Amino acid sequence: MTEPFVEITRREEFSAAHRLHNPRFSDEENRRLYGVCNNPNGHGHNYAFEVTVRGPVPRETGMVMDLNRLMVLLREEIVSQVDHKHLNHDVPWLAGIVPTAEHVAVAFWKRIEPRLAQFEGCSLRRVRVYESRDNFADYHGAGA
Amino acid sequence: MTEPFVEITRREEFSAAHRLHNPRFSDEENRRLYGVCNNPNGHGHNYAFEVTVRGPVPRETGMVMDLNRLMVLLREEIVSQVDHKHLNHDVPWLAGIVPTAEHVAVAFWKRIEPRLAQFEGCSLRRVRVYESRDNFADYHGAGA
Amino acid sequence: MTEPFVEITRREEFSAAHRLHNPRFSDEENRRLYGVCNNPNGHGHNYAFEVTVRGPVPRETGMVMDLNRLMVLLREEIVSQVDHKHLNHDVPWLAGIVPTAEHVAVAFWKRIEPRLAQFEGCSLRRVRVYESRDNFADYHGAGA
Amino acid sequence: MTEPFVEITRREEFSAAHRLHNPRFSDEENRRLYGVCNNPNGHGHNYAFEVTVRGPVPRETGMVMDLNRLMVLLREEIVSQVDHKHLNHDVPWLAGIVPTAEHVAVAFWKRIEPRLAQFEGCSLRRVRVYESRDNFADYHGAGA
Amino acid sequence: MTEPFVEITRREEFSAAHRLHNPRFSDEENRRLYGVCNNPNGHGHNYAFEVTVRGPVPRETGMVMDLNRLMVLLREEIVSQVDHKHLNHDVPWLAGIVPTAEHVAVAFWKRIEPRLAQFEGCSLRRVRVYESRDNFADYHGAGA
Amino acid sequence: MTEPFVEITRREEFSAAHRLHNPRFSDEENRRLYGVCNNPNGHGHNYAFEVTVRGPVPRETGMVMDLNRLMVLLREEIVSQVDHKHLNHDVPWLAGIVPTAEHVAVAFWKRIEPRLAQFEGCSLRRVRVYESRDNFADYHGAGA
Repeated sequence: MTEPFVEITRREEFSAAHRLHNPRFSDEENRRLYGVCNNPNGHGHNYAFEVTVRGPVPRETGMVMDLNRLMVLLREEIVSQVDHKHLNHDVPWLAGIVPTAEHVAVAFWKRIEPRLAQFEGCSLRRVRVYESRDNFADYHGAGA
Repeated sequence: MTEPFVEITRREEFSAAHRLHNPRFSDEENRRLYGVCNNPNGHGHNYAFEVTVRGPVPRETGMVMDLNRLMVLLREEIVSQVDHKHLNHDVPWLAGIVPTAEHVAVAFWKRIEPRLAQFEGCSLRRVRVYESRDNFADYHGAGA
Repeated sequence: MTEPFVEITRREEFSAAHRLHNPRFSDEENRRLYGVCNNPNGHGHNYAFEVTVRGPVPRETGMVMDLNRLMVLLREEIVSQVDHKHLNHDVPWLAGIVPTAEHVAVAFWKRIEPRLAQFEGCSLRRVRVYESRDNFADYHGAGA
Repeated sequence: MTEPFVEITRREEFSAAHRLHNPRFSDEENRRLYGVCNNPNGHGHNYAFEVTVRGPVPRETGMVMDLNRLMVLLREEIVSQVDHKHLNHDVPWLAGIVPTAEHVAVAFWKRIEPRLAQFEGCSLRRVRVYESRDNFADYHGAGA
Repeated sequence: MTEPFVEITRREEFSAAHRLHNPRFSDEENRRLYGVCNNPNGHGHNYAFEVTVRGPVPRETGMVMDLNRLMVLLREEIVSQVDHKHLNHDVPWLAGIVPTAEHVAVAFWKRIEPRLAQFEGCSLRRVRVYESRDNFADYHGAGA
Repeated sequence: MTEPFVEITRREEFSAAHRLHNPRFSDEENRRLYGVCNNPNGHGHNYAFEVTVRGPVPRETGMVMDLNRLMVLLREEIVSQVDHKHLNHDVPWLAGIVPTAEHVAVAFWKRIEPRLAQFEGCSLRRVRVYESRDNFADYHGAGA
């Protein structure tokens, strides 16, 4: 029998400040575009994000991949970089990017995806970023 | 580089009463079909619903669409119409529909989808209606 | 060594409709007093309630009381009576009471408290009624 | 007009113990592979799982299927079998399977899917198993 | 019969940035004292807070106070002032205060308590401030 | 002005197996007393617990105590000892205790309370242990 394909998801959380502001736009244009999210001193969130990986499940191990190694990878590559930080100022790989949930999801994908090559047969399927329970963004990769 | 496509989701909540009952069926048939949900005086829920929109993310703005405008749209078109109401009696655009979660999801889609035309490049992808944490319905549109 | 006193809490949920309306007031007065909650056809909630019981913990059993028996008691006395019902019309022991969260909490206390006499050494400490995550009422009994 | 297709989801919960361990591997290999999840005396979770069914929604009933019958089916086939049990020792249809979330999701699918044949036009779309809020596995069937 | 006393609680949420830093301490002392929360560019949270009011419940109204008016009061006095703001820089009545959860809870109490005088017989009992689900502070007033 | 007293709470989680069983009772008595929780192979939970500490808030620091040190203390004294363990077999300081939520709350208190002496002016006020969202136990200490 062929191995079933399953998707596993790991969720992590972090607390950060951000400001929606594009320095190439005028202040008025920024206010119009981003509303309260353009507050000059920024605001913040308890962010959560989910990373979904798809792969075959060998009968012997029962695991798409070692979820513990995925957790360590996410904490090294993402959480340790953004937790208790200001996303506009403190994170080199977010520099020059307006830190909307959409952009953050794409940036997380780009940072995680190359690291998954070490897990044979696995592919990244989705990165979801929650700014709050009521607002979230899903990115499925460049081809999706 | 082409713009990435991202899905954004907004969640809203409302409290409403409803009764599952089709006047074209006999009382006995209604009881058999809907069980406790057919209680003549109705019952109610803290409903939640999620609306997912897909579109390209321009690098300058970082947004599929202005989430604030989506929030306003959902509150005008949906929440203000159904919150603290009885879905069988108080909502003209639900009249004559058995207000199951399935029907409510389809009705929300039909009400929201035309309004999204104003957001260039965006398309509605999913409406999810939660009757409770344990029961929900997803509608992906007529072609899906 | 004396037995420690501990409080245990059991949470249950139910879905119901209600309307805040006092027939002794004028319609206008009711609207002023209860606002959207006075909608003639009612509205509804996924209610939750918590019942807290305090008592000594015998070393042999480790239990203030048999939590399973408490669960059965709450389902018999409360949940089976109010789930998928209209609180204004379908529940004899709520008849004539404006079904605010405050009144519901007091009514639950009066219904549960006499039944706890069978559990030696235990006393009812709190009944909490959630209309939603954002609104709840606590009753601690007549003397508190 | 053709009937819309909708997906409905029912969520259930259970509490169980499990141990990640494959007797065909050495103890050292098991420890390396499963880490703390290999603890000889096991550990446990408040599991939750979601079952998603897709089907047409007849205008007369407004329901993909009778959600109450789905609930009963899930409680008979799954919850009554695994709740307050040890997944490695107490569940005949999980015998010989390393009880990871991936394997549990596949096993639930195999157990539920044949039972859905009684609901005309409905098909099983997804089984999701949560070990915790932070870890879950999705199975979409052999062809997906 | 005397009127029962009940406590009602209203929960609200807001998103804000903050930095734990006392300018009277050295940078080193601030880092030692506040750790990652001293990050110069700040971080942020989806805060939630609960306000609990105690009072008698008149049989005619069933309400300790008009919960809608409490909601409006909290949004005017608190949420509109702190939502999408930086607590260290943007809120006059928090100026000069290290914005820990403890201090924020006390500041909210001082701002809300005088406004409750308009509700006869009611008294403020608790202000709880959640920085996250895992960290919160409760203030019960100067005498408690 | 005197310093305000505030209560701060920290929540932590762990996953563990347990079995409710007292070897001094007969098997039949154990089954009668603990029902499904007496399953010979045990079952498990995603436990959560909250630890509440009360103390004065110095204006300079704004903190009852360093919440980070409390977090480290709880992880060292509790989480590292019970996470991914079987409470009946793997935890020396729970040996010989029927691991009900009540007993676990008291045991956590005894383990944490002496360690708080290092935080001047602080006192332990409550240990709450959640077996699930629906069942929890609160211990307030020997004198309460």
